[in-house]
Amino acid sequence: MKFEEKTVDKKLLYKGKIIELNLHRVKLPNGKESSREIVNHPGGVAILTYKNDDTLIMVEQFRKPLEKTILEIPAGKMEKGEKPEVCGRRELEEETGYKAKTFKYLGKIVTSPGFCDEVIYIYEARDLYKGRNDIADEDEFINLKEIKTDKIKDMIKSGEIIDAKTVSSFMFI
Amino acid sequence: MKFEEKTVDKKLLYKGKIIELNLHRVKLPNGKESSREIVNHPGGVAILTYKNDDTLIMVEQFRKPLEKTILEIPAGKMEKGEKPEVCGRRELEEETGYKAKTFKYLGKIVTSPGFCDEVIYIYEARDLYKGRNDIADEDEFINLKEIKTDKIKDMIKSGEIIDAKTVSSFMFI
Repeated sequence: MKFEEKTVDKKLLYKGKIIELNLHRVKLPNGKESSREIVNHPGGVAILTYKNDDTLIMVEQFRKPLEKTILEIPAGKMEKGEKPEVCGRRELEEETGYKAKTFKYLGKIVTSPGFCDEVIYIYEARDLYKGRNDIADEDEFINLKEIKTDKIKDMIKSGEIIDAKTVSSFMFI
Repeated sequence: MKFEEKTVDKKLLYKGKIIELNLHRVKLPNGKESSREIVNHPGGVAILTYKNDDTLIMVEQFRKPLEKTILEIPAGKMEKGEKPEVCGRRELEEETGYKAKTFKYLGKIVTSPGFCDEVIYIYEARDLYKGRNDIADEDEFINLKEIKTDKIKDMIKSGEIIDAKTVSSFMFI
């Protein structure tokens, strides 16, 4: 069976720096109407960043929504009209100070398809070399850590790493 | 280094059926101020649902934010004050019509820590038996599919399955 929900009315509730919130009135497959709260997000790119064959560069960052510092692979939002690979290479350099000779697309994920359209494209970066280190986002405060991939797998299974893009990216290794 | 962003002011922008949107004025580690758009979500539970040792029950569902039908493991939102296991058992029965003799916690993920506080708890359900099949959410239209775990892994790697909670759950298998 094919289901669909057609928008019969749409109201922009909020347009912010990063997200937009829209309330859709939709027609359900059974003919009834319902509402859907939808967060529109520009999407992002996350990068499995290989310092060498068995070690990744990870980013430790305070995440305000969780009121907690967590460990993630380097990642960032796409700017308007920016292609995923361009975004990924930019974010890699901004967050780690490295550029990559090898930059390969692995797959994509949708983070919260029930209420949000965010897509994260996952890449792997290898053969790193020093780029600029003066281009970090001035609103962003991060610590870099080099961690072995086997250790990261253990940290995922033990619950020390909970970030969905980081956990998901390991399915592409 | 420990970083933190203290809220100095907070404004509720929207309180909906499912999500709430708050704009925080925060003090950054460098003393400057910035704003953070934060979506508050009740969180949810996702269930690796074993029909037998090598086959999962999957849910195909139209996701309005993506304007697309995608394949996911059974999952749902927590009701106010509901414990994750209670939510998981309820959603399992609502979506698949099954109850489970074995219901085991595997881990949790945060889906979009940059702007949203959603946490998804991941469980595995085994030893299924028929529950009620008249309690489905009336706003929800789903198709159930039984798919072998090896096939699901292939579908993740090939990009046919992109749902982050589904992809992440396979790191706990």
